Amino acid sequence: MNLFYLPGATEGEVQLTAEESVHCVRVLRMKAGDEVLFTDGKGWFYKGVLSRADPRGCVADLTTRRRGDDAEGFGIHIAIGPTKQADRTEWFLEKATEIGIDEVSFFASEHSERRHVQLERLNRVVLSAMKQSLKSRLPILNPMVKFDELLRKPYNGQKFIAWIDDSKRENLYNMIRQGEKVMVLIGPEGDFSKNEVARAQSSGFLPVSLGTARLRTETAALAACMGFHVKNQLRTDL
Amino acid sequence: MNLFYLPGATEGEVQLTAEESVHCVRVLRMKAGDEVLFTDGKGWFYKGVLSRADPRGCVADLTTRRRGDDAEGFGIHIAIGPTKQADRTEWFLEKATEIGIDEVSFFASEHSERRHVQLERLNRVVLSAMKQSLKSRLPILNPMVKFDELLRKPYNGQKFIAWIDDSKRENLYNMIRQGEKVMVLIGPEGDFSKNEVARAQSSGFLPVSLGTARLRTETAALAACMGFHVKNQLRTDL
Repeated sequence: MNLFYLPGATEGEVQLTAEESVHCVRVLRMKAGDEVLFTDGKGWFYKGVLSRADPRGCVADLTTRRRGDDAEGFGIHIAIGPTKQADRTEWFLEKATEIGIDEVSFFASEHSERRHVQLERLNRVVLSAMKQSLKSRLPILNPMVKFDELLRKPYNGQKFIAWIDDSKRENLYNMIRQGEKVMVLIGPEGDFSKNEVARAQSSGFLPVSLGTARLRTETAALAACMGFHVKNQLRTDL
Repeated sequence: MNLFYLPGATEGEVQLTAEESVHCVRVLRMKAGDEVLFTDGKGWFYKGVLSRADPRGCVADLTTRRRGDDAEGFGIHIAIGPTKQADRTEWFLEKATEIGIDEVSFFASEHSERRHVQLERLNRVVLSAMKQSLKSRLPILNPMVKFDELLRKPYNGQKFIAWIDDSKRENLYNMIRQGEKVMVLIGPEGDFSKNEVARAQSSGFLPVSLGTARLRTETAALAACMGFHVKNQLRTDL
């Protein structure tokens, strides 16, 4: 079953976007009468039938809708200093979308080697990962901001900052409380400066470790995201 | 600090491999007298000084050695049906090596779209990931075998098989017992056939779920590996 994306999808007759129309007819070779599944990217799936198969503009008739299992979101927000190689950030986004992530923020800090991201391109990455993994929600990607601007943003959940050095810190996976929203700051390749860590702490971000392994930026970001899901899937009666 | 790989490294005078010599002199621009760190890929780090910087064959004098934190291994073995796109399997290997993995097996099963792997190329991937993440052990990559041949191999630890369907199964992360060795079977894009799952179960592999998300093969393999580490890092007194 192929999943199509239509922001603001509703029951009734809908027109596919230009991109989706071409994909539908030229790539998937779908014909009028074929069953289609849509998501509005905000938690709703819509089922229906393709009424016009036209690469210049497909039309579908959506009859039933249901909430996705992921409709309420997962409760994980990762803020990352984008990697020097753009594709490493893109794979983090693809994998995090598959596993489940609500929001990703990008920031520029003291040791950042990359101070801008191509948000449009990154949005295409999460969009295709959302469709591939049949999610009902499109992760929110926030535009790049300065580190201190990010620290000032209010966040209603547990806030953590992870970095690499030999200082003893509690493990993120032990700090995460099941059922609570979690935000984790992951530094760029050059990592955070001591001063930045201190400023994050005074903004309420608790210092955590991701274990003893020396992880790349994008691996650390994915580990934090996966750790959140693992912790929340653990039965507490074990 | 750059880490060099020298199988069978010992204290005393050692010759770098051709590849490492070029990397040392041409890329890292190292000179005689520079401090060097080696691993034998089997759990030992060696420290010393570069005594001859020559792209045709560097020589180092290794004075002290110590065991790596990862010298004893981690206790996680993933068996995977390689992905159609080779780079997806390579990324799993890079990330799993960073996070920590002992052994990876490749198998061909009913729905496999790829029935061979370039083991030499894959070994270069884990080698560079080992060096980048300063590990003292090189993960073992086993040559491709038929699925049923893999099932017959003895394994002294917990054995699991994960696949995607709607059947209710216990979560891998709950099944893993801290401190025990774990092996997980992850199917190819086409996943396992019902019959293969049954044969794995009769070979002692317990059916598990990796959660509700629909993960790609390489993402599922990494999730299993990360889940193993998260579970083993959790304090039981929480």
